[in-house]
Amino acid sequence: MKPIKVGLLGIGTVGSGTFNVLKRNREEITRRAGRDIQIAMVADLNTARAKELTNGECEIVNDANLVVNHPDIDIVIELIGGYGIAKDLVLKAIANGKHVVTANKALLAMHGNEIFKAAQEKGVMVAFEAAVAGGIPIIKALREGLTANRIEWIAGIINGTTNFILSEMRDKGLDFDVVLKEAQRLGYAEADPTFDIEGVDAAHKATIMSAIAFGIPVQFDKAHVEGITKLQATDIRYAEQLGYRIKLLGIAKRTPKGIELRVHPTLIPAKRLIANVEGAMNAVLVQGDAVGATLYYGKGAGSEPTASAVIADLVDITRLATADPEHRVPHLAFQPDAMTDTPILPMSEITTSYYLRMQVEDQTGVLADVTRILADSTISIDAMLQKEPAEGESCTDIIMLTHQTQEKNVEAAIAKIEALPTVVGKVSKIRLEHLS
Amino acid sequence: MKPIKVGLLGIGTVGSGTFNVLKRNREEITRRAGRDIQIAMVADLNTARAKELTNGECEIVNDANLVVNHPDIDIVIELIGGYGIAKDLVLKAIANGKHVVTANKALLAMHGNEIFKAAQEKGVMVAFEAAVAGGIPIIKALREGLTANRIEWIAGIINGTTNFILSEMRDKGLDFDVVLKEAQRLGYAEADPTFDIEGVDAAHKATIMSAIAFGIPVQFDKAHVEGITKLQATDIRYAEQLGYRIKLLGIAKRTPKGIELRVHPTLIPAKRLIANVEGAMNAVLVQGDAVGATLYYGKGAGSEPTASAVIADLVDITRLATADPEHRVPHLAFQPDAMTDTPILPMSEITTSYYLRMQVEDQTGVLADVTRILADSTISIDAMLQKEPAEGESCTDIIMLTHQTQEKNVEAAIAKIEALPTVVGKVSKIRLEHLS
Repeated sequence: MKPIKVGLLGIGTVGSGTFNVLKRNREEITRRAGRDIQIAMVADLNTARAKELTNGECEIVNDANLVVNHPDIDIVIELIGGYGIAKDLVLKAIANGKHVVTANKALLAMHGNEIFKAAQEKGVMVAFEAAVAGGIPIIKALREGLTANRIEWIAGIINGTTNFILSEMRDKGLDFDVVLKEAQRLGYAEADPTFDIEGVDAAHKATIMSAIAFGIPVQFDKAHVEGITKLQATDIRYAEQLGYRIKLLGIAKRTPKGIELRVHPTLIPAKRLIANVEGAMNAVLVQGDAVGATLYYGKGAGSEPTASAVIADLVDITRLATADPEHRVPHLAFQPDAMTDTPILPMSEITTSYYLRMQVEDQTGVLADVTRILADSTISIDAMLQKEPAEGESCTDIIMLTHQTQEKNVEAAIAKIEALPTVVGKVSKIRLEHLS
Repeated sequence: MKPIKVGLLGIGTVGSGTFNVLKRNREEITRRAGRDIQIAMVADLNTARAKELTNGECEIVNDANLVVNHPDIDIVIELIGGYGIAKDLVLKAIANGKHVVTANKALLAMHGNEIFKAAQEKGVMVAFEAAVAGGIPIIKALREGLTANRIEWIAGIINGTTNFILSEMRDKGLDFDVVLKEAQRLGYAEADPTFDIEGVDAAHKATIMSAIAFGIPVQFDKAHVEGITKLQATDIRYAEQLGYRIKLLGIAKRTPKGIELRVHPTLIPAKRLIANVEGAMNAVLVQGDAVGATLYYGKGAGSEPTASAVIADLVDITRLATADPEHRVPHLAFQPDAMTDTPILPMSEITTSYYLRMQVEDQTGVLADVTRILADSTISIDAMLQKEPAEGESCTDIIMLTHQTQEKNVEAAIAKIEALPTVVGKVSKIRLEHLS
């Protein structure tokens, strides 16, 4: 099958991420899509930089119209941002029968109804996973994964800048102005951070989610938009004392009288998973009438996380546009004849960390013996716990956490440890994963 | 368009949930699928119960072969379980050119390769969102949402029985045998809980996820399967002291030498979100090379959560099978001409709880005045915090958390409170959501 040809409008952070990930994972992506996906053209005002970023592998132009008008381009990716020229280009691409992938939350929040109507009339797709919560596939979850549900409400931490600031304010007890400056210094906040700190960005995203979840038109003008600029360190402290965290939440909620659509700082019980989402991470909590609560968590921004969402949309459109039985979504996400022969490792070969508990006689040299055995098996100790024996007892527990090592090393060491006269019974072993 | 006709094999917990949710949310599901989805036939040995559960709305038979051989049935939902008769019926449905939706993790873990091969050769779809982590759309995330990524590893809490037991062991400091009996009494564990507590169920699911994530054949026989039956309360306590929680994790991990596929109790740092997944909830953490870590959390089992996944698959197959431009995945998950006219409520009409902070003169009657104003606005107080004034100060903060009330009530109350001579300056108001 001939490749799907893609035109990229703008090769900044997300555009270069898209190019790089498509290139790096070309083989896997092609297997999953059933066809090769090729960035054929890139439009950017800075053509020199575009040429450099794309290694001369794409046709570079400085006029985006050349891309949206080009007869060979199947899909246009709009990464220019804003709702001026981006709107014109998106509408033109649609009029020319091209599918559109966009990360532009502002454009969809302001002009989504017009854009989706035009696309539906023309019979092309507009996909926007990258517009909400970066790489987290939340749009797909709302639109497809949870399609059986009547969505009752959505509550999301969907702006990394403000969540980073709130985490820092809480961790360090500092005021908003101080933390904003630090966030700007570290690159978590823009030089002009208005859209983020005033809640506008979160409101764009909440508006888009409300349209998908409730089947209503996009109505950004009706959203309540309130950021974090008035939040005091003292309120964060009081909230903590009462058992709450403060997060900037984007909320869309169905009620008998209508839909609530609001963004504002919100106290949340500290025991909720979503209350413990820190730094620049995002999370969206969705309540459906059949499935109950589901939560989606991950990176809400960044070059490759957002590119992950853009490419997911490209693959979706490619699969659907091809629409022949040979290329439907493959059951295992690969064409079965393309499946690799990577072996499943036997347990002796796996690598992880370990918790070891042993009962030992309270005698000189016991610890030296045990640590020597571990060292001889190239196992190093990360942490240890040993208490004095209980009154009248001569034995005590020693607990050790090891660094990463192979299972076979641990098995060998345990056998030797159990053979020591000072060790009583068997060594308990539980594997440990840092998951970082 | 004529409806898609579905045949249900087995109308137990999940089958009846599927029937009920399809019926209750028929309108929304039809809008999203673009066609009506009709359960036309139900096969169950207990035909009387099947008739009762389906209100006489479907043709009831006691021979599943009548369903898989019926010329008018487009999609077969296999909810019988196990890998005996279920396997034969699934293969027969495929041979007859019918798409299959299944919740049967055991069947796919044991015979997935044969089933997927048959489906690919015949050009039909086999969907199994309901087989892993209940209503959480994790298969869709792995197969589509994260399709741009090289998956590095997956770690999941994917068995609710064992997670419930581990949560109880930790919360109450009890031993495994005691908690197992309680779990059986409460319905979280089966009378024969072997598959759950020995890790077999989790291993079925981890095996299926490994096939999707890494593009390898399903190889359940190579998985390391270890449950929680040997876990001691003492290890849970020591792990806690060292800053870890113990969870039964299903792990699939890519390494240079091959794939690790293992289920076993695992220490996880207590600060990880996934370490705080309690009770019968499930969660899957996925590490992708582009997006980084994403987490998916929700109900892993139950009648309607699992039905949510079954129906998501039905809608997917319906959308793809129809495969004409009119019925592709609608951009907003609805046909734009079918969008409802539900209003967005103005902020005065929204209902939530509130955090209120006010600075008051330390005088008799201040609290009485404030609480009277709140009561007059029908606002009741959930919690309160008041400290003595600092030494030498005459003012102090009063913090109140209210029950749910309308924004306009709070606005009215705040105006009156600010007018009190004993209240200094403005009342700070932050909204509060319980998210339960």
